[in-house]
Amino acid sequence: MLVMAGLGLYDERDVTLKTLDFAKKVDKIYAEFYTAILTGTSMEKIENTLQKPITVLDREKVEYETNKLIEEAVDKDIMFLTAGDPMVATTHVDIAVEARKKGIEVVIINAPSIYSAIGITGLQLYKFGKTTSVVFPEPNYFPETPYDVIKDNLKLGYHTLCLLDIQADKERFMTANEGLDALLKIEEKRNENVISGETYAAVVARAGSIKPGLYYGKIKDLINYDFGTPLHCVIIPGKLHFMEEDALKYLFENI
Amino acid sequence: MLVMAGLGLYDERDVTLKTLDFAKKVDKIYAEFYTAILTGTSMEKIENTLQKPITVLDREKVEYETNKLIEEAVDKDIMFLTAGDPMVATTHVDIAVEARKKGIEVVIINAPSIYSAIGITGLQLYKFGKTTSVVFPEPNYFPETPYDVIKDNLKLGYHTLCLLDIQADKERFMTANEGLDALLKIEEKRNENVISGETYAAVVARAGSIKPGLYYGKIKDLINYDFGTPLHCVIIPGKLHFMEEDALKYLFENI
Repeated sequence: MLVMAGLGLYDERDVTLKTLDFAKKVDKIYAEFYTAILTGTSMEKIENTLQKPITVLDREKVEYETNKLIEEAVDKDIMFLTAGDPMVATTHVDIAVEARKKGIEVVIINAPSIYSAIGITGLQLYKFGKTTSVVFPEPNYFPETPYDVIKDNLKLGYHTLCLLDIQADKERFMTANEGLDALLKIEEKRNENVISGETYAAVVARAGSIKPGLYYGKIKDLINYDFGTPLHCVIIPGKLHFMEEDALKYLFENI
Repeated sequence: MLVMAGLGLYDERDVTLKTLDFAKKVDKIYAEFYTAILTGTSMEKIENTLQKPITVLDREKVEYETNKLIEEAVDKDIMFLTAGDPMVATTHVDIAVEARKKGIEVVIINAPSIYSAIGITGLQLYKFGKTTSVVFPEPNYFPETPYDVIKDNLKLGYHTLCLLDIQADKERFMTANEGLDALLKIEEKRNENVISGETYAAVVARAGSIKPGLYYGKIKDLINYDFGTPLHCVIIPGKLHFMEEDALKYLFENI
Protein backbone atom coordinates (compact mmCIF):
# COMPACT_ATOMS: atom_id res chain seq x y z
CA MET A 1 0.00 0.00 0.00
CA LEU A 2 1.16 3.52 -0.75
CA VAL A 3 -0.22 6.20 1.58
CA MET A 4 0.22 9.71 0.20
CA ALA A 5 -0.41 12.18 2.99
CA GLY A 6 -0.17 15.93 3.35
CA LEU A 7 1.48 17.76 6.23
CA GLY A 8 -0.44 20.99 5.77
CA LEU A 9 1.06 24.42 5.42
CA TYR A 10 3.11 25.73 8.28
CA ASP A 11 4.07 23.53 11.22
CA GLU A 12 3.79 20.00 12.64
CA ARG A 13 0.42 20.80 14.28
CA ASP A 14 -1.23 21.08 10.83
CA VAL A 15 -1.18 17.32 10.46
CA THR A 16 -4.54 15.52 10.62
CA LEU A 17 -5.44 12.65 12.94
CA LYS A 18 -5.93 10.47 9.85
CA THR A 19 -2.30 11.00 8.87
CA LEU A 20 -1.22 10.11 12.42
CA ASP A 21 -3.38 6.95 12.33
CA PHE A 22 -1.68 5.77 9.14
CA ALA A 23 1.80 6.84 10.27
CA LYS A 24 1.44 4.41 13.17
CA LYS A 25 0.47 1.54 10.86
CA VAL A 26 2.93 1.86 7.98
CA ASP A 27 6.32 0.13 7.71
CA LYS A 28 8.28 3.14 6.51
CA ILE A 29 7.82 6.88 6.03
CA TYR A 30 9.38 8.97 3.27
CA ALA A 31 8.99 12.71 2.74
CA GLU A 32 10.05 15.32 0.22
CA PHE A 33 10.35 19.05 0.83
CA TYR A 34 11.56 20.39 -2.49
CA THR A 35 8.15 21.15 -4.06
CA ALA A 36 6.97 22.89 -0.86
CA ILE A 37 8.20 23.28 2.68
CA LEU A 38 6.88 23.87 6.21
CA THR A 39 8.70 26.94 7.48
CA GLY A 40 7.27 26.88 11.02
CA THR A 41 8.77 23.58 12.18
CA SER A 42 11.73 21.19 11.96
CA MET A 43 12.26 17.62 10.79
CA GLU A 44 12.75 16.62 14.42
CA LYS A 45 9.39 18.06 15.48
CA ILE A 46 7.61 16.32 12.60
CA GLU A 47 9.24 12.99 13.50
CA ASN A 48 8.30 13.46 17.16
CA THR A 49 4.70 14.17 16.16
CA LEU A 50 4.47 11.10 13.92
CA GLN A 51 6.52 9.04 16.39
CA LYS A 52 8.51 7.42 13.60
CA PRO A 53 11.72 8.23 11.72
CA ILE A 54 11.27 9.86 8.31
CA THR A 55 13.59 9.44 5.34
CA VAL A 56 13.75 12.70 3.38
CA LEU A 57 14.13 12.28 -0.38
CA ASP A 58 15.68 14.98 -2.58
CA ARG A 59 14.46 15.97 -6.03
CA GLU A 60 16.63 13.40 -7.84
CA LYS A 61 15.46 10.59 -5.57
CA VAL A 62 11.79 11.46 -6.08
CA GLU A 63 11.91 12.12 -9.81
CA TYR A 64 14.38 9.48 -10.97
CA GLU A 65 14.06 6.77 -8.36
CA THR A 66 10.27 6.76 -8.04
CA ASN A 67 10.32 3.12 -9.08
CA LYS A 68 12.15 2.11 -5.91
CA LEU A 69 9.47 3.77 -3.77
CA ILE A 70 6.71 2.09 -5.76
CA GLU A 71 8.46 -1.32 -5.75
CA GLU A 72 8.74 -1.09 -1.98
CA ALA A 73 5.00 -0.42 -1.73
CA VAL A 74 4.21 -3.73 -3.48
CA ASP A 75 4.64 -5.78 -0.31
CA LYS A 76 5.10 -3.12 2.37
CA ASP A 77 2.97 -0.23 3.63
CA ILE A 78 4.82 2.92 2.65
CA MET A 79 3.86 6.50 3.54
CA PHE A 80 4.96 9.38 1.36
CA LEU A 81 4.63 12.78 3.04
CA THR A 82 4.57 16.17 1.34
CA ALA A 83 3.78 19.71 2.46
CA GLY A 84 0.26 20.94 1.68
CA ASP A 85 -2.22 18.59 0.06
CA PRO A 86 -0.46 15.51 -1.32
CA MET A 87 -1.82 15.67 -4.87
CA VAL A 88 -1.07 19.24 -5.86
CA ALA A 89 2.36 18.70 -7.45
CA THR A 90 2.49 16.90 -10.81
CA THR A 91 5.30 14.69 -9.49
CA HIS A 92 3.01 13.32 -6.78
CA VAL A 93 0.15 12.67 -9.17
CA ASP A 94 2.64 10.76 -11.31
CA ILE A 95 3.68 8.59 -8.34
CA ALA A 96 0.04 7.78 -7.52
CA VAL A 97 -0.71 6.88 -11.14
CA GLU A 98 2.42 4.70 -11.53
CA ALA A 99 1.60 2.86 -8.30
CA ARG A 100 -1.97 2.23 -9.45
CA LYS A 101 -0.66 0.95 -12.82
CA LYS A 102 1.23 -1.70 -10.86
CA GLY A 103 -1.94 -2.64 -8.96
CA ILE A 104 -0.80 -1.10 -5.67
CA GLU A 105 -3.49 0.26 -3.35
CA VAL A 106 -3.08 4.04 -3.08
CA VAL A 107 -4.58 5.92 -0.13
CA ILE A 108 -4.58 9.71 -0.33
CA ILE A 109 -4.97 11.74 2.86
CA ASN A 110 -5.90 15.37 2.29
CA ALA A 111 -4.46 18.27 4.23
CA PRO A 112 -4.75 22.06 4.29
CA SER A 113 -3.39 23.51 1.05
CA ILE A 114 -2.70 27.04 -0.14
CA TYR A 115 -5.52 26.56 -2.69
CA SER A 116 -8.11 26.63 0.08
CA ALA A 117 -6.11 28.43 2.78
CA ILE A 118 -6.37 31.68 0.81
CA GLY A 119 -9.93 31.71 2.14
CA ILE A 120 -8.33 33.45 5.17
CA THR A 121 -8.27 36.59 3.00
CA GLY A 122 -12.04 36.77 2.86
CA LEU A 123 -11.81 36.81 -0.93
CA GLN A 124 -14.38 34.33 -2.20
CA LEU A 125 -12.69 31.10 -3.32
CA TYR A 126 -15.19 30.41 -6.09
CA LYS A 127 -14.21 33.70 -7.74
CA PHE A 128 -10.60 32.67 -8.25
CA GLY A 129 -9.82 31.86 -11.88
CA LYS A 130 -6.87 29.79 -13.07
CA THR A 131 -3.85 29.79 -10.74
CA THR A 132 -0.38 30.76 -11.93
CA SER A 133 3.21 30.40 -10.76
CA VAL A 134 5.84 33.14 -10.90
CA VAL A 135 9.33 31.67 -11.31
CA PHE A 136 12.73 33.22 -10.63
CA PRO A 137 13.76 34.94 -13.88
CA GLU A 138 16.80 33.28 -15.49
CA PRO A 139 18.86 34.83 -18.34
CA ASN A 140 17.19 32.51 -20.88
CA TYR A 141 14.01 31.63 -19.03
CA PHE A 142 11.49 34.24 -18.01
CA PRO A 143 8.03 32.86 -18.82
CA GLU A 144 5.25 35.37 -19.34
CA THR A 145 2.49 32.88 -18.46
CA PRO A 146 1.50 34.67 -15.20
CA TYR A 147 0.80 37.80 -17.22
CA ASP A 148 -1.53 35.97 -19.62
CA VAL A 149 -3.32 34.18 -16.81
CA ILE A 150 -3.91 37.44 -14.90
CA LYS A 151 -5.06 39.12 -18.12
CA ASP A 152 -7.57 36.35 -18.92
CA ASN A 153 -8.85 36.21 -15.32
CA LEU A 154 -9.23 40.01 -15.08
CA LYS A 155 -11.27 40.08 -18.29
CA LEU A 156 -13.78 37.82 -16.55
CA GLY A 157 -13.51 39.64 -13.19
CA TYR A 158 -11.82 36.67 -11.49
CA HIS A 159 -9.11 36.82 -8.82
CA THR A 160 -5.68 35.32 -9.60
CA LEU A 161 -3.60 33.39 -7.10
CA CYS A 162 0.09 33.76 -7.99
CA LEU A 163 2.18 31.06 -6.35
CA LEU A 164 5.82 32.06 -5.97
CA ASP A 165 8.86 29.98 -6.89
CA ILE A 166 10.29 27.59 -4.29
CA GLN A 167 13.83 26.27 -4.77
CA ALA A 168 13.97 24.53 -1.43
CA ASP A 169 17.21 22.70 -2.26
CA LYS A 170 18.89 26.12 -2.58
CA GLU A 171 16.87 27.55 0.37
CA ARG A 172 15.54 30.09 -2.07
CA PHE A 173 11.92 31.19 -1.66
CA MET A 174 10.58 33.96 -3.85
CA THR A 175 9.30 36.87 -1.77
CA ALA A 176 6.14 38.78 -2.69
CA ASN A 177 8.44 41.73 -3.49
CA GLU A 178 10.33 39.65 -6.07
CA GLY A 179 7.07 38.25 -7.42
CA LEU A 180 5.50 41.67 -7.90
CA ASP A 181 8.74 42.93 -9.47
CA ALA A 182 8.68 40.03 -11.94
CA LEU A 183 5.07 40.88 -12.90
CA LEU A 184 5.98 44.54 -13.52
CA LYS A 185 8.98 43.45 -15.63
CA ILE A 186 6.69 41.38 -17.86
CA GLU A 187 4.36 44.40 -18.18
CA GLU A 188 7.37 46.48 -19.34
CA LYS A 189 8.03 43.92 -22.07
CA ARG A 190 4.45 43.33 -23.11
CA ASN A 191 3.05 46.79 -22.52
CA GLU A 192 -0.60 45.67 -22.63
CA ASN A 193 -1.70 47.61 -19.52
CA VAL A 194 -2.61 44.56 -17.50
CA ILE A 195 -0.83 45.64 -14.31
CA SER A 196 1.11 48.67 -13.12
CA GLY A 197 2.37 50.24 -9.91
CA GLU A 198 -1.18 51.56 -9.43
CA THR A 199 -2.74 48.07 -9.50
CA TYR A 200 -3.98 46.79 -6.14
CA ALA A 201 -2.61 43.46 -4.95
CA ALA A 202 -2.89 41.31 -1.84
CA VAL A 203 -0.03 39.48 -0.19
CA VAL A 204 -0.43 36.45 2.07
CA ALA A 205 2.58 35.54 4.20
CA ARG A 206 3.00 32.38 6.32
CA ALA A 207 -0.40 30.89 5.45
CA GLY A 208 -1.37 28.18 7.89
CA SER A 209 0.26 29.87 10.87
CA ILE A 210 -1.77 31.32 13.75
CA LYS A 211 -0.90 34.85 12.68
CA PRO A 212 -0.50 34.87 8.91
CA GLY A 213 0.42 38.21 7.35
CA LEU A 214 -2.30 39.75 5.17
CA TYR A 215 -1.36 42.90 3.25
CA TYR A 216 -3.28 44.93 0.69
CA GLY A 217 -2.28 47.98 -1.30
CA LYS A 218 -0.99 49.36 -4.58
CA ILE A 219 1.87 47.36 -6.06
CA LYS A 220 4.14 50.45 -5.94
CA ASP A 221 3.65 50.59 -2.15
CA LEU A 222 3.83 46.84 -1.55
CA ILE A 223 6.96 46.28 -3.61
CA ASN A 224 9.36 47.60 -0.96
CA TYR A 225 7.44 46.45 2.10
CA ASP A 226 8.90 43.85 4.47
CA PHE A 227 6.43 40.96 4.65
CA GLY A 228 8.60 38.94 7.03
CA THR A 229 9.71 35.36 6.58
CA PRO A 230 8.44 33.18 3.70
CA LEU A 231 6.40 31.51 2.29
CA HIS A 232 4.55 34.32 0.51
CA CYS A 233 1.96 34.38 -2.24
CA VAL A 234 0.38 37.20 -4.22
CA ILE A 235 -3.24 37.69 -5.24
CA ILE A 236 -4.36 40.03 -8.01
CA PRO A 237 -8.03 40.63 -7.17
CA GLY A 238 -10.62 40.80 -9.91
CA LYS A 239 -14.01 42.42 -9.46
CA LEU A 240 -14.72 42.86 -5.75
CA HIS A 241 -18.03 42.24 -4.02
CA PHE A 242 -18.71 44.74 -1.20
CA MET A 243 -18.22 41.96 1.34
CA GLU A 244 -14.80 41.26 -0.12
CA GLU A 245 -13.98 44.96 0.13
CA ASP A 246 -14.99 44.82 3.79
CA ALA A 247 -12.69 41.83 4.31
CA LEU A 248 -9.78 43.65 2.62
CA LYS A 249 -10.43 46.58 4.94
CA TYR A 250 -10.75 44.72 8.23
CA LEU A 251 -8.73 41.53 7.87
CA PHE A 252 -5.76 43.01 6.02
CA GLU A 253 -3.03 45.41 6.99
CA ASN A 254 -3.57 48.20 4.50
CA ILE A 255 -0.40 49.59 2.99
CA MET B 1 -10.79 35.55 21.01
CA LEU B 2 -12.71 33.87 18.20
CA VAL B 3 -11.13 30.70 16.81
CA MET B 4 -12.59 29.68 13.46
CA ALA B 5 -11.53 26.13 12.73
CA GLY B 6 -12.26 23.62 9.99
CA LEU B 7 -13.19 19.99 10.55
CA GLY B 8 -12.11 18.80 7.14
CA LEU B 9 -14.19 16.81 4.71
CA TYR B 10 -15.38 13.43 5.79
CA ASP B 11 -14.95 12.22 9.37
CA GLU B 12 -13.61 13.19 12.80
CA ARG B 13 -10.09 12.00 11.92
CA ASP B 14 -9.74 14.86 9.40
CA VAL B 15 -9.27 17.34 12.23
CA THR B 16 -5.77 18.83 12.61
CA LEU B 17 -3.69 18.82 15.80
CA LYS B 18 -3.87 22.63 15.79
CA THR B 19 -7.66 22.48 16.06
CA LEU B 20 -7.35 19.97 18.93
CA ASP B 21 -4.83 22.27 20.69
CA PHE B 22 -7.24 25.20 20.55
CA ALA B 23 -10.30 23.08 21.42
CA LYS B 24 -8.58 22.24 24.72
CA LYS B 25 -7.93 25.92 25.50
CA VAL B 26 -11.23 27.60 24.57
CA ASP B 27 -14.17 28.25 26.91
CA LYS B 28 -16.89 27.11 24.54
CA ILE B 29 -17.28 25.39 21.17
CA TYR B 30 -19.99 26.11 18.59
CA ALA B 31 -20.44 24.41 15.23
CA GLU B 32 -22.68 24.72 12.20
CA PHE B 33 -23.40 22.02 9.65
CA TYR B 34 -25.85 23.69 7.28
CA THR B 35 -23.30 25.05 4.75
CA ALA B 36 -21.48 21.72 4.65
CA ILE B 37 -21.52 18.45 6.54
CA LEU B 38 -19.26 15.53 7.45
CA THR B 39 -21.07 12.41 6.25
CA GLY B 40 -18.58 9.89 7.66
CA THR B 41 -19.04 10.61 11.35
CA SER B 42 -21.44 11.68 14.09
CA MET B 43 -21.69 14.59 16.52
CA GLU B 44 -20.79 12.20 19.32
CA LYS B 45 -17.57 11.11 17.64
CA ILE B 46 -16.56 14.71 16.96
CA GLU B 47 -17.22 15.66 20.59
CA ASN B 48 -15.22 12.65 21.79
CA THR B 49 -12.34 13.64 19.55
CA LEU B 50 -12.31 17.24 20.75
CA GLN B 51 -13.06 16.13 24.34
CA LYS B 52 -15.54 18.93 24.83
CA PRO B 53 -19.28 19.44 24.29
CA ILE B 54 -20.24 21.25 21.09
CA THR B 55 -23.31 23.47 20.65
CA VAL B 56 -24.66 23.09 17.13
CA LEU B 57 -26.16 26.27 15.65
CA ASP B 58 -28.78 26.17 12.90
CA ARG B 59 -28.95 28.55 9.94
CA GLU B 60 -31.11 31.11 11.77
CA LYS B 61 -28.80 31.15 14.78
CA VAL B 62 -25.70 31.68 12.62
CA GLU B 63 -27.14 34.23 10.24
CA TYR B 64 -29.35 36.26 12.55
CA GLU B 65 -27.74 35.80 15.95
CA THR B 66 -24.12 36.22 14.87
CA ASN B 67 -23.87 39.15 17.24
CA LYS B 68 -24.37 36.90 20.27
CA LEU B 69 -21.47 34.70 19.17
CA ILE B 70 -19.28 37.73 18.58
CA GLU B 71 -20.29 39.40 21.86
CA GLU B 72 -19.37 36.23 23.70
CA ALA B 73 -15.92 36.29 22.09
CA VAL B 74 -15.20 39.74 23.56
CA ASP B 75 -14.20 38.34 26.95
CA LYS B 76 -14.22 34.58 26.36
CA ASP B 77 -12.32 32.26 24.01
CA ILE B 78 -14.91 30.89 21.61
CA MET B 79 -14.34 28.27 18.91
CA PHE B 80 -16.58 28.13 15.85
CA LEU B 81 -16.31 24.89 13.90
CA THR B 82 -17.38 24.27 10.32
CA ALA B 83 -16.89 21.45 7.83
CA GLY B 84 -14.08 21.95 5.31
CA ASP B 85 -11.90 25.03 5.53
CA PRO B 86 -13.47 27.64 7.85
CA MET B 87 -13.39 30.60 5.46
CA VAL B 88 -15.00 29.15 2.35
CA ALA B 89 -18.62 30.16 3.09
CA THR B 90 -19.54 33.85 2.85
CA THR B 91 -21.33 33.61 6.19
CA HIS B 92 -18.10 32.64 7.93
CA VAL B 93 -16.11 35.42 6.28
CA ASP B 94 -18.77 37.79 7.53
CA ILE B 95 -18.42 36.52 11.10
CA ALA B 96 -14.62 36.96 11.00
CA VAL B 97 -14.95 40.50 9.60
CA GLU B 98 -17.61 41.55 12.16
CA ALA B 99 -15.47 40.19 15.00
CA ARG B 100 -12.42 42.08 13.74
CA LYS B 101 -14.50 45.26 13.47
CA LYS B 102 -15.18 44.91 17.20
CA GLY B 103 -11.44 44.51 17.88
CA ILE B 104 -11.71 40.80 18.70
CA GLU B 105 -8.68 38.63 17.93
CA VAL B 106 -9.62 36.15 15.22
CA VAL B 107 -7.60 32.98 14.74
CA ILE B 108 -8.31 30.92 11.63
CA ILE B 109 -7.25 27.27 11.50
CA ASN B 110 -7.21 25.78 8.04
CA ALA B 111 -8.41 22.30 7.19
CA PRO B 112 -8.76 20.10 4.12
CA SER B 113 -11.32 21.58 1.74
CA ILE B 114 -12.96 20.36 -1.46
CA TYR B 115 -11.08 23.15 -3.30
CA SER B 116 -7.77 21.35 -2.77
CA ALA B 117 -9.08 17.81 -2.16
CA ILE B 118 -10.04 17.53 -5.85
CA GLY B 119 -6.29 17.05 -6.33
CA ILE B 120 -7.10 13.36 -5.66
CA THR B 121 -8.42 13.25 -9.24
CA GLY B 122 -4.96 13.90 -10.68
CA LEU B 123 -6.43 16.85 -12.58
CA GLN B 124 -4.01 19.74 -12.10
CA LEU B 125 -5.40 22.22 -9.56
CA TYR B 126 -3.87 25.25 -11.24
CA LYS B 127 -5.85 24.47 -14.38
CA PHE B 128 -9.23 24.87 -12.65
CA GLY B 129 -10.99 28.10 -13.60
CA LYS B 130 -13.77 29.73 -11.62
CA THR B 131 -15.82 27.38 -9.43
CA THR B 132 -19.60 27.16 -9.69
CA SER B 133 -22.50 25.83 -7.64
CA VAL B 134 -25.45 23.90 -9.01
CA VAL B 135 -28.57 24.48 -6.94
CA PHE B 136 -31.79 22.47 -6.70
CA PRO B 137 -34.10 23.87 -9.40
CA GLU B 138 -37.17 25.60 -7.92
CA PRO B 139 -40.25 26.63 -9.92
CA ASN B 140 -39.15 30.27 -9.91
CA TYR B 141 -35.45 29.85 -9.30
CA PHE B 142 -33.22 27.95 -11.69
CA PRO B 143 -30.02 29.99 -12.14
CA GLU B 144 -28.03 29.40 -15.33
CA THR B 145 -24.74 30.63 -13.79
CA PRO B 146 -23.08 27.17 -13.86
CA TYR B 147 -23.62 27.07 -17.62
CA ASP B 148 -21.93 30.42 -18.14
CA VAL B 149 -19.03 29.55 -15.87
CA ILE B 150 -18.42 26.24 -17.67
CA LYS B 151 -18.69 28.01 -21.02
CA ASP B 152 -16.13 30.68 -20.05
CA ASN B 153 -13.76 28.13 -18.53
CA LEU B 154 -13.97 25.78 -21.53
CA LYS B 155 -13.14 28.64 -23.90
CA LEU B 156 -9.86 29.01 -22.02
CA GLY B 157 -9.32 25.24 -21.66
CA TYR B 158 -9.83 25.32 -17.87
CA HIS B 159 -11.51 22.66 -15.75
CA THR B 160 -14.69 23.56 -13.84
CA LEU B 161 -15.48 22.36 -10.34
CA CYS B 162 -19.26 22.21 -9.89
CA LEU B 163 -20.22 22.11 -6.23
CA LEU B 164 -23.65 20.61 -5.61
CA ASP B 165 -26.40 22.04 -3.45
CA ILE B 166 -26.48 21.12 0.24
CA GLN B 167 -29.69 21.66 2.20
CA ALA B 168 -28.42 20.00 5.35
CA ASP B 169 -31.40 21.16 7.44
CA LYS B 170 -33.65 19.12 5.08
CA GLU B 171 -31.07 16.31 4.79
CA ARG B 172 -31.07 16.99 1.08
CA PHE B 173 -27.76 16.66 -0.76
CA MET B 174 -27.71 17.00 -4.52
CA THR B 175 -26.34 13.88 -6.18
CA ALA B 176 -24.03 14.03 -9.18
CA ASN B 177 -26.93 12.57 -11.19
CA GLU B 178 -29.17 15.49 -10.26
CA GLY B 179 -26.33 17.94 -10.89
CA LEU B 180 -25.63 16.59 -14.38
CA ASP B 181 -29.36 16.56 -15.12
CA ALA B 182 -29.60 20.23 -14.11
CA LEU B 183 -26.72 21.10 -16.45
CA LEU B 184 -28.39 19.31 -19.38
CA LYS B 185 -31.68 21.11 -18.61
CA ILE B 186 -29.91 24.48 -18.86
CA GLU B 187 -28.37 23.37 -22.18
CA GLU B 188 -31.89 22.55 -23.45
CA LYS B 189 -32.97 26.10 -22.59
CA ARG B 190 -29.86 27.90 -23.83
CA ASN B 191 -28.97 25.63 -26.74
CA GLU B 192 -25.41 27.01 -27.09
CA ASN B 193 -23.72 23.59 -27.39
CA VAL B 194 -21.69 23.92 -24.23
CA ILE B 195 -22.50 20.45 -22.89
CA SER B 196 -24.43 17.42 -24.04
CA GLY B 197 -24.82 13.74 -23.22
CA GLU B 198 -21.61 13.17 -25.19
CA THR B 199 -19.57 15.54 -22.96
CA TYR B 200 -17.10 13.84 -20.62
CA ALA B 201 -17.43 14.61 -16.93
CA ALA B 202 -15.79 13.43 -13.72
CA VAL B 203 -17.60 12.70 -10.48
CA VAL B 204 -15.97 12.74 -7.04
CA ALA B 205 -17.92 11.07 -4.24
CA ARG B 206 -17.07 11.14 -0.53
CA ALA B 207 -13.95 13.30 -0.90
CA GLY B 208 -11.77 13.10 2.19
CA SER B 209 -12.62 9.47 2.91
CA ILE B 210 -10.04 6.69 2.58
CA LYS B 211 -11.80 5.33 -0.50
CA PRO B 212 -13.41 8.24 -2.31
CA GLY B 213 -15.34 7.38 -5.47
CA LEU B 214 -13.79 8.67 -8.69
CA TYR B 215 -15.83 8.20 -11.86
CA TYR B 216 -15.22 9.37 -15.42
CA GLY B 217 -17.31 9.01 -18.53
CA LYS B 218 -19.83 10.58 -20.90
CA ILE B 219 -22.63 12.43 -19.15
CA LYS B 220 -25.23 10.15 -20.80
CA ASP B 221 -23.56 7.14 -19.11
CA LEU B 222 -22.89 8.83 -15.77
CA ILE B 223 -26.38 10.26 -15.38
CA ASN B 224 -27.96 6.97 -14.28
CA TYR B 225 -24.97 5.54 -12.42
CA ASP B 226 -25.12 4.91 -8.67
CA PHE B 227 -22.28 6.89 -7.06
CA GLY B 228 -23.17 5.81 -3.54
CA THR B 229 -23.73 8.06 -0.56
CA PRO B 230 -23.12 11.84 -0.73
CA LEU B 231 -21.39 14.27 -0.80
CA HIS B 232 -20.74 14.36 -4.54
CA CYS B 233 -19.23 16.94 -6.83
CA VAL B 234 -18.89 17.14 -10.61
CA ILE B 235 -15.96 18.30 -12.70
CA ILE B 236 -16.21 19.32 -16.33
CA PRO B 237 -12.63 18.94 -17.57
CA GLY B 238 -11.13 21.46 -19.95
CA LYS B 239 -8.11 20.74 -22.13
CA LEU B 240 -6.33 17.66 -20.79
CA HIS B 241 -2.58 17.20 -20.48
CA PHE B 242 -1.46 13.61 -21.26
CA MET B 243 -0.60 13.14 -17.59
CA GLU B 244 -4.14 14.12 -16.68
CA GLU B 245 -5.45 11.62 -19.23
CA ASP B 246 -3.31 8.99 -17.57
CA ALA B 247 -4.76 9.92 -14.18
CA LEU B 248 -8.32 9.70 -15.53
CA LYS B 249 -7.46 6.25 -16.88
CA TYR B 250 -5.78 4.78 -13.82
CA LEU B 251 -7.24 6.59 -10.81
CA PHE B 252 -10.85 6.70 -11.97
CA GLU B 253 -13.47 4.05 -12.50
CA ASN B 254 -14.27 4.50 -16.15
CA ILE B 255 -17.95 4.33 -17.00
